[in-house]
Amino acid sequence: MFDLAAYIAEKNKHVNRSLVSAFRDVDASGRIVAAMQYSLMAGGKRLRPILCLAANEAVGGKETEALPAACALEMIHTYSLIHDDLPAMDNDDLRRGKPTCHVAFDEATAILAGDALLTLAFQILSATPMRSEKHSRKWLEIIHTVSTAAGYRGMIEGQMLDILSEGKTLSLTQLESMHKLKTGALIQASLQCGVIIGGGTSAQMAALEVYARNIGLAFQVTDDILNIEGDPQVMGKAAGTDALRNKITYPALLGLEESKAFAQDLVRNALKALEDFDRRSDPLRALSKYIIERHR
Amino acid sequence: MFDLAAYIAEKNKHVNRSLVSAFRDVDASGRIVAAMQYSLMAGGKRLRPILCLAANEAVGGKETEALPAACALEMIHTYSLIHDDLPAMDNDDLRRGKPTCHVAFDEATAILAGDALLTLAFQILSATPMRSEKHSRKWLEIIHTVSTAAGYRGMIEGQMLDILSEGKTLSLTQLESMHKLKTGALIQASLQCGVIIGGGTSAQMAALEVYARNIGLAFQVTDDILNIEGDPQVMGKAAGTDALRNKITYPALLGLEESKAFAQDLVRNALKALEDFDRRSDPLRALSKYIIERHR
Repeated sequence: MFDLAAYIAEKNKHVNRSLVSAFRDVDASGRIVAAMQYSLMAGGKRLRPILCLAANEAVGGKETEALPAACALEMIHTYSLIHDDLPAMDNDDLRRGKPTCHVAFDEATAILAGDALLTLAFQILSATPMRSEKHSRKWLEIIHTVSTAAGYRGMIEGQMLDILSEGKTLSLTQLESMHKLKTGALIQASLQCGVIIGGGTSAQMAALEVYARNIGLAFQVTDDILNIEGDPQVMGKAAGTDALRNKITYPALLGLEESKAFAQDLVRNALKALEDFDRRSDPLRALSKYIIERHR
Repeated sequence: MFDLAAYIAEKNKHVNRSLVSAFRDVDASGRIVAAMQYSLMAGGKRLRPILCLAANEAVGGKETEALPAACALEMIHTYSLIHDDLPAMDNDDLRRGKPTCHVAFDEATAILAGDALLTLAFQILSATPMRSEKHSRKWLEIIHTVSTAAGYRGMIEGQMLDILSEGKTLSLTQLESMHKLKTGALIQASLQCGVIIGGGTSAQMAALEVYARNIGLAFQVTDDILNIEGDPQVMGKAAGTDALRNKITYPALLGLEESKAFAQDLVRNALKALEDFDRRSDPLRALSKYIIERHR
């Protein structure tokens, strides 16, 4: 039986160690660095890095080679949270049980810390070891994959659509399109990066893209369900906020039970996409179930 | 006699054409794209792209190969202006004679448009033509150069220092360190990118780095002088704002005449750094003088 908790704990340790070492040679007294580290080390689930490492493993890649991409993905995710939490956006004071970056520091510092994390991601993806003759092409492809997913036709467009949809009614299709961009694009890129680094085949890439689309959506549906049923203590943030804000969610459109069934369907699709993979994809199998069974 | 005005006009045309084509296949009705294009096409001087193209030319490179980097540099510069203008930062309403991005759109859109321009820069630098076996390494080096210069130890740290220094007195050394980061780093990266793309020698790189440091500082000293003596109509922004904000500037520390002499010294140093270059560096020579003689 595959032990997902131990797997996540181990990968978390490796990712955190790499994230810390990204700042190794830096004067830690700087305000920007302090704000970057504050948000980066605030206890995130590290879902995107773990998906990247697990995809890399599923196609036979080495973990050490995928770690820089795993770190870059977490930096981009963290920057997006810092900016989304700003008063001009979602105006959230609490994230993972701690004051958000602009509350702990100030708005200007939070904007700059987000900018700096996004920029540092690309600095890491283009660092010296990646520039060997053999690997350059692969890493350029990774940079293109990540920047496309994080950009104005991916994650950023998703956040814009989310803001523009406030107070409006959305159809199920519109809700799905928004989430595919806002959270789905970077989750998909995480898996794609793992496949590229591990040297997966194009059939493996196609299969893991199907997996990614399904777990990405399942992740969002579960987030919506947790916002209703979750324990604020465990989640580190308030529950019931979506209803208060009149936010369109899956439970609001489908009902709570139907939403849970939908999330399970999505996980079934994700598992089906892994059919042709061997035991090395067990972490991906376990992760797909974890995504809808988690409590935070 | 080298005709700088014609040179700038021609390069501007090429850069603008490339910038427009970066959005070619995009549904132009999107709000994010509209905000990105609004700021990108607001009539900037295109100094960084032109320096990149001129450096590439000085070492014998081809313009078409350098244009993607030139565009990426302008996108990063534009994103930094959008974010610096935000209410939480410098709170500027006017830029290049037009309402700033958050005034023309709103704060959330301006934050996202800045994020999107930064991300698009890396998307362009890693696009398919750059991923040929032959060129991959070069473009990864460019991405590293640009992301390092734009990041938390470069431009972003400079903006943070600028904000933190408000209301404080700075020594000349501190003022110089701040500007070296805030504007100098990206100007230096612009020239470095030109050299990398054009395949310049390490001696050429070292010489153009000296050139860059000197014109970068000369640019800032001149900005400070224009803030006192400039014509608001020509500059597209108000004059006298530094004094109103009690900002430490070169004229405030050195006096107006001494600042002008300092700027001229810097240009002399920049020209000296070009001694071993042939006629193909004439644009760089002319640009160094233009930087302190400009009216906006």
